[in-house]
Amino acid sequence: MPTILGQNQYGKAENRVVRITRDGATHHIKDLNVSVALSGDMDEVHYSGSNAHVLPTDTTKNTVYAFAKKYGIESAEQFGIHLARHFVTSQEPIHRARIRVEEYAWERIEAAGEKAGDGAGEGGHSFVRKGQETRLTQIAYDGERWEVISGLKDLTVLNSTDSEFRGYVKDAYTTLEETRDRVLATSVSGRWRFNWTGDDRPMPDWEESYRQVRKHLLQAFAETYSLSLQQTMYEMGARIIDRRDEIDEVRFSLPNSHHFLVDLEPFGLSNDTAEGAVYVAADRPYGLIEATVLRDGREPRIPADLTNL
Amino acid sequence: MPTILGQNQYGKAENRVVRITRDGATHHIKDLNVSVALSGDMDEVHYSGSNAHVLPTDTTKNTVYAFAKKYGIESAEQFGIHLARHFVTSQEPIHRARIRVEEYAWERIEAAGEKAGDGAGEGGHSFVRKGQETRLTQIAYDGERWEVISGLKDLTVLNSTDSEFRGYVKDAYTTLEETRDRVLATSVSGRWRFNWTGDDRPMPDWEESYRQVRKHLLQAFAETYSLSLQQTMYEMGARIIDRRDEIDEVRFSLPNSHHFLVDLEPFGLSNDTAEGAVYVAADRPYGLIEATVLRDGREPRIPADLTNL
Amino acid sequence: MPTILGQNQYGKAENRVVRITRDGATHHIKDLNVSVALSGDMDEVHYSGSNAHVLPTDTTKNTVYAFAKKYGIESAEQFGIHLARHFVTSQEPIHRARIRVEEYAWERIEAAGEKAGDGAGEGGHSFVRKGQETRLTQIAYDGERWEVISGLKDLTVLNSTDSEFRGYVKDAYTTLEETRDRVLATSVSGRWRFNWTGDDRPMPDWEESYRQVRKHLLQAFAETYSLSLQQTMYEMGARIIDRRDEIDEVRFSLPNSHHFLVDLEPFGLSNDTAEGAVYVAADRPYGLIEATVLRDGREPRIPADLTNL
Amino acid sequence: MPTILGQNQYGKAENRVVRITRDGATHHIKDLNVSVALSGDMDEVHYSGSNAHVLPTDTTKNTVYAFAKKYGIESAEQFGIHLARHFVTSQEPIHRARIRVEEYAWERIEAAGEKAGDGAGEGGHSFVRKGQETRLTQIAYDGERWEVISGLKDLTVLNSTDSEFRGYVKDAYTTLEETRDRVLATSVSGRWRFNWTGDDRPMPDWEESYRQVRKHLLQAFAETYSLSLQQTMYEMGARIIDRRDEIDEVRFSLPNSHHFLVDLEPFGLSNDTAEGAVYVAADRPYGLIEATVLRDGREPRIPADLTNL
Repeated sequence: MPTILGQNQYGKAENRVVRITRDGATHHIKDLNVSVALSGDMDEVHYSGSNAHVLPTDTTKNTVYAFAKKYGIESAEQFGIHLARHFVTSQEPIHRARIRVEEYAWERIEAAGEKAGDGAGEGGHSFVRKGQETRLTQIAYDGERWEVISGLKDLTVLNSTDSEFRGYVKDAYTTLEETRDRVLATSVSGRWRFNWTGDDRPMPDWEESYRQVRKHLLQAFAETYSLSLQQTMYEMGARIIDRRDEIDEVRFSLPNSHHFLVDLEPFGLSNDTAEGAVYVAADRPYGLIEATVLRDGREPRIPADLTNL
Repeated sequence: MPTILGQNQYGKAENRVVRITRDGATHHIKDLNVSVALSGDMDEVHYSGSNAHVLPTDTTKNTVYAFAKKYGIESAEQFGIHLARHFVTSQEPIHRARIRVEEYAWERIEAAGEKAGDGAGEGGHSFVRKGQETRLTQIAYDGERWEVISGLKDLTVLNSTDSEFRGYVKDAYTTLEETRDRVLATSVSGRWRFNWTGDDRPMPDWEESYRQVRKHLLQAFAETYSLSLQQTMYEMGARIIDRRDEIDEVRFSLPNSHHFLVDLEPFGLSNDTAEGAVYVAADRPYGLIEATVLRDGREPRIPADLTNL
Repeated sequence: MPTILGQNQYGKAENRVVRITRDGATHHIKDLNVSVALSGDMDEVHYSGSNAHVLPTDTTKNTVYAFAKKYGIESAEQFGIHLARHFVTSQEPIHRARIRVEEYAWERIEAAGEKAGDGAGEGGHSFVRKGQETRLTQIAYDGERWEVISGLKDLTVLNSTDSEFRGYVKDAYTTLEETRDRVLATSVSGRWRFNWTGDDRPMPDWEESYRQVRKHLLQAFAETYSLSLQQTMYEMGARIIDRRDEIDEVRFSLPNSHHFLVDLEPFGLSNDTAEGAVYVAADRPYGLIEATVLRDGREPRIPADLTNL
Repeated sequence: MPTILGQNQYGKAENRVVRITRDGATHHIKDLNVSVALSGDMDEVHYSGSNAHVLPTDTTKNTVYAFAKKYGIESAEQFGIHLARHFVTSQEPIHRARIRVEEYAWERIEAAGEKAGDGAGEGGHSFVRKGQETRLTQIAYDGERWEVISGLKDLTVLNSTDSEFRGYVKDAYTTLEETRDRVLATSVSGRWRFNWTGDDRPMPDWEESYRQVRKHLLQAFAETYSLSLQQTMYEMGARIIDRRDEIDEVRFSLPNSHHFLVDLEPFGLSNDTAEGAVYVAADRPYGLIEATVLRDGREPRIPADLTNL
């Protein structure tokens, strides 16, 4: 045979699961998009079309919904761990499962008659979607070792000052002018890998960890006087590694969302003045800055490509 | 001539303007997407290609940026009014201007060292985009009369109970079963028209009006025990008309974002129990429910089609 | 009652219907996205939540699929007419139906062994989606009169020369330089209204009409030496009115997809030379040019807003 | 230092380049989206913010446009090779360049007066975008070795018969029924790696190679009687490896775009009959089937994740 099969995986992608939990009149919501990818002893389905080892993708979908009822969704990570363990341990030909989850956050709508702090506003069954970042996790399990990589995407941030860009290389194609004051904006896509890998160790508190990582990356972005987006990005990663023992590796992919100062001189106006300034927010092209930040002594495992561009 | 020209308009669409205002170390941000459409005595540019009456779309873009500096952006509505007045009054062939604005909201990132309430967190230059709804406004001016229609899109809301659907018509193609308890979810697209039309009357407080309308529509959604999405939609509109004197007309286009109860019986599980339930959030198809709600005695002016589907 | 209900409509949107027709081993495909909007005697469902006049949107979905089997899909227009007639004539409270259809075109994959022209390539069951424009139609029926508006969107076209832009108005905000040679590109969104309105007259050949209108608008775009996009747009509309008796009105919404000549002087290069030139294709902002072209003596009926921006 | 920097890269993404070449009145068009990613000796810009080794992303953008003029765009691959070689050989701190290109295809608009075959239709300057798949390539160069991975995305294909799915594993969560006749549809995302790696060997004919690979994968899709999508996918990859000596590895990511037979029994209709059938084209969830197909004896190098879900 002149050709052979290499790495392969299959499963049902983008199962949209909404789990409502009722605590009397107070409801809670978890809103996930779950994708399953399985691999193992799957040569025959590729070579001959025999499905004898294939658990249908439709079955993986059913399992997602049944598990959401049976075990609830404590966190996206915990839910992914339940699913991955099930597929690997219940089906002999399946040797590895990878579960990816997107989570959409909601907050409560306070009713008109409710006073802040009287507790009634904490009950209820009405929600509005938060709409900021999408929370992400990926659980991988091979029957022995767990790898949990969580993260977020589409968290858009902007510093309106404390950003410079100068002292760079100039070659024959360089026309950019140096600046000591610019807008620095990006839409954060980040992933972080937990050092929890085995059932013998207690799991991190996934929800608290997410809140803390999000807070630290926002604060590092806000507090860094930036000489380059690379420096800001590194500070964001280092802050997380420094403050969160459960995390060994962070990967960021940050578009440099250019905000160009508009030239208003032709209209007799100075743009950048003490009072403020006007910028054009550009779409394309954009700088794209990517890096891994690691706890010293650990091996990187998050793939370098978070983007297909 | 067998063919003639009908309604026509032109201008620069989607000018992305970010305005930073500096109050010492405390910066403020306005983030808009501004689209200009002009019409008037424009027959010749269509019939012969003569541009003698055409102010270039590039010029309309320049004007947007220059005005953002010159006059600031107090609100999207106020900014649109400035622009529309300029185009109609400064160019004889232009008889009507329509300015559309999308506004993206930002909130401040609090730095690590700041304590809540000490005021320091209110300063700063670091922002994170709110990411919920997009705020909208449309200003139209013909040299005499103003029409201001504001609104929002992509505000996603969900009630996890207090929604029924029954007592409907059954014909030969009806298979749907009645329900006394379902999830009701939608992504609100709404527009509301102000009764301010003339320079002789004081303008509404556009920012406060937006906050109040948004609050009322969310509360009406949360508080209505729903027998149909039409009823909930009408209550949302009526609440706004009732509470906000400055508004005469509301138009909603609401997808019924179906959350179907998953059948878990094949797996020996009861889904909808006291403890909660699991739903599949469906994409397409979806119900689409649209209506105008009017102050009695007023004429509707918001176009019936907010959607191209 | 201080508030009243205005125009309203409801139905199931975006029903994705694929119809395969088998002619022995030769299959044919129709691929549609069908949206239903019904209106009529619907006050009570809004005011009190009574569904006594409401045919469920789920039923309208079922009807779409059942009719696709029962009557086939000869054309998007014919299919929409079947559906609209059914809803208006079978349900007393429904007085008006509007059916919108998007159609996706496919072409056959020729198998390896087939020779062009031997007929075998015309058989088969394998298709690849064409992926150019999306074809559109909207059928409206009130029990007496038909209104059929067909069209297309996302047909991207470009002339690499024979386009000027000069002789325009200059004001204090004008910086654009005149040009006698530029790239003219747009993504056509167009709608055209048929003068067929009654069952007493024979219907147009909807498929042939679409092919001819598409051909004429492409040819008019290609053949017009352009002094402005408005002029090119008018020529496209006038060509259709002139050549197609079944059509009385055309509406276009054309973004001016700017292709800017890159300034390569800083690198010692002349860009626009006999050999050719390099352009940057810009995203936002863009000019947006819209107009109606009418057969003389007819009333315009296509809404002026094809876009929500 | 408790944290260290891992893999990192930077550059300007999504440079939209349109190159017109003039051969008298006959123009030719190349339409690309070019993304640059550079890496090398970049520790300092991350640790201290020193830009002394940083060629600005703005300069990489300028280089793209200048090279499009200077060298033309013979093919996306050839153009990427020019760029990658330049960055690695001209800047000492840059050790590796990765150029990604998306290419959009255009075809000519034939003018009204032109007869097929008279040659006139081959001239001209008017184009309509083809709109099917987007062609892709990625060039990586480290100063010694080239790696060229080309491909496509969004090529949508469908077989209306000759597809079965049965004989699969059943567990407690399996409800799917077996079928001997279904619609098989997917939107092909594929990448293929060339075995050309060094300047000492002649390059493949990139344009001809693309046309042939595209043809073979379409034919393999059309001609395979399918027992599973995995089998069809493997046949598509094996056909390419078998017929194209210049390619050693293929990777596919294929959504199983489900077309479900609609149950019309409640309406007294048999759906799947000799005459044909009606399907609902579903959006989410979808099966996702991915694999690498390799020439025997070669090492896989295309990353396993083409998707972020």
